[in-house]
Amino acid sequence: MTARTTLSIDAMGGDEGPAMVVEGVAMAAAKRSDTDFLLFGKKAQIVSLLDKFPDAAAVCTVRHAEDVVLNDDKPAVALRGRRGSSMRMAIDSVKDGEAAAVISAGNTGALMAMAKFVLKTLPGIDRPAIATFFPTQRSESVMLDLGANIECDANHLVQFAVMGEVFARNVLGLKEPSVGILNVGVEDLKGNSAVKEAAAVLQDTHLPIKFHGFVEGDDIGAGTVDVIVTDGFTGNVALKTAEGTAKFFSQALRDVLTSSSRASLGALIAKPALNQLKIKLDPRRYNGAMFLGLNGICIKSHGGTDAFGFAHAIEVGYDLIANSINDSIKQDFSQLQADMLSNKQSIAGQ
Amino acid sequence: MTARTTLSIDAMGGDEGPAMVVEGVAMAAAKRSDTDFLLFGKKAQIVSLLDKFPDAAAVCTVRHAEDVVLNDDKPAVALRGRRGSSMRMAIDSVKDGEAAAVISAGNTGALMAMAKFVLKTLPGIDRPAIATFFPTQRSESVMLDLGANIECDANHLVQFAVMGEVFARNVLGLKEPSVGILNVGVEDLKGNSAVKEAAAVLQDTHLPIKFHGFVEGDDIGAGTVDVIVTDGFTGNVALKTAEGTAKFFSQALRDVLTSSSRASLGALIAKPALNQLKIKLDPRRYNGAMFLGLNGICIKSHGGTDAFGFAHAIEVGYDLIANSINDSIKQDFSQLQADMLSNKQSIAGQ
Repeated sequence: MTARTTLSIDAMGGDEGPAMVVEGVAMAAAKRSDTDFLLFGKKAQIVSLLDKFPDAAAVCTVRHAEDVVLNDDKPAVALRGRRGSSMRMAIDSVKDGEAAAVISAGNTGALMAMAKFVLKTLPGIDRPAIATFFPTQRSESVMLDLGANIECDANHLVQFAVMGEVFARNVLGLKEPSVGILNVGVEDLKGNSAVKEAAAVLQDTHLPIKFHGFVEGDDIGAGTVDVIVTDGFTGNVALKTAEGTAKFFSQALRDVLTSSSRASLGALIAKPALNQLKIKLDPRRYNGAMFLGLNGICIKSHGGTDAFGFAHAIEVGYDLIANSINDSIKQDFSQLQADMLSNKQSIAGQ
Repeated sequence: MTARTTLSIDAMGGDEGPAMVVEGVAMAAAKRSDTDFLLFGKKAQIVSLLDKFPDAAAVCTVRHAEDVVLNDDKPAVALRGRRGSSMRMAIDSVKDGEAAAVISAGNTGALMAMAKFVLKTLPGIDRPAIATFFPTQRSESVMLDLGANIECDANHLVQFAVMGEVFARNVLGLKEPSVGILNVGVEDLKGNSAVKEAAAVLQDTHLPIKFHGFVEGDDIGAGTVDVIVTDGFTGNVALKTAEGTAKFFSQALRDVLTSSSRASLGALIAKPALNQLKIKLDPRRYNGAMFLGLNGICIKSHGGTDAFGFAHAIEVGYDLIANSINDSIKQDFSQLQADMLSNKQSIAGQ
């Protein structure tokens, strides 16, 4: 008998509320027969939604939460005032060892604030970062931070680089993932002091990191590196810019392919191929941002996703558990700290 | 008889060198019978290239420049050491009143440093910004800064907002262009202090600016606002991310449409429609970034463009002249300064 995994779900998060979440859990449960779910939220509502999914209901336990975090709650307010919310109770269950990960489609800022407060950061990490993976011309890459840290210094960027590298190696299964820092040019003299200092540290480190150097915005889609490191302001803008551009492109393609009967005929014939493209670029397949650096696994789903996308976010949580991501991060950070210390000593000893 | 316009061209800039530039000038000259060109660079080489374009040769004057700015020249080094370069001489000709604008496909940093040094900034402007327009789901928008100013305070962002608005009104011909500041969320509390303070100033100002508030990365492609204001680091990353995503999408589309004979047949039938899309999204049609805020018009062409793209950058220069962009900026800045002063006085008088 293999061990079963328990995942905690904030059933009240997301723009569509518990109906979308419960259906997503049912989809994930159908794929993972070794997983149990703790669902937090309005009990009567969730139980009634589960009626439609008897197979999933058999692996779900519903825990009543009286309160809900709202999308416009400020993080500090949610942290102080929403201790009885579905989001908070779901995070608490990871802290208490009842579940191995928490997945929520609720308010990102509140989720990060609560998760940081309850779970704490891993040793050596000042600030957790939000990371996601996305398709590129080459394969898939990871980018972090995507908005948890608006202002970052060199030290934060170095920590993100280490966490991102561990993620790419353990979860994406890449042997020697390459790491780049996002900048306005690839030459050493380009950029602000944070990126220049972080690049200098990563060039000198004895960590087994394959540091590529600086990359530019167009390297994101090209897949020039496996891990893109940036501050939360730039990363958030870059990710959303890419999403917006993809949406613009898709719309423009749809428009021209319906602009005449000849175009529609061509599109009909090419439909299987166009569907492949649609599947490849389906944003739901990349749903599920990871909060890396916490002493516990926390996944943020897009608030506007559907059940298919939410099920994917659950899969991301499962992958992080299966690959013991936090053990690997802990190990690499103790190496980083030993490395930094020996660097300082060797500088002092010169 | 209408007045003729003279444009100065750095014939040595760009990855392809003078052959691309001269052909681009010929294409622009064919469209603009009222324009003369001053071409700066290696005289013998340029004259020989002009032999192929006798009509263009008739409106071109070649001025010999012994030196060339290299792509990896640091701006400060180019500024001090390349006074005899084609780039510098072309800029000097605008300062001297011989030409109404300068267009170069050379080293961006060197071009900005030289243009700022030679032409100076307009009254009230601390730092010139790089701006470009680009296609959106709605129509066309302008974004600035794209990399001239890596670190910006609130005051710089406000100046960019005013310059961008003037540009959208005068050159894009929009009646009441809306202006947004790029941020990681649309709520007032989001972002760093620079964007929050700049938003507060733009909300309070009596300038005739339609300030939309904050926008996010996906609003760029959506065309939510006509003018997107951001610091040079974020703007550079966002623009290149959009370019990279578009390239990735185009490549993925080409791949699926050649993946089977059925797909190829569909693509063949839909070809006229797909060509429309290609034309709409052709980056050469958006080539030509403007250095706004200088006391003279300076246009930077992509270094990797072809003659068609370079001809477009020349058109951008022509448009800025035709719409007296700098007179409008000057006028709005004296209003802004009066406005700031009266705001200070009313605060002091409270």
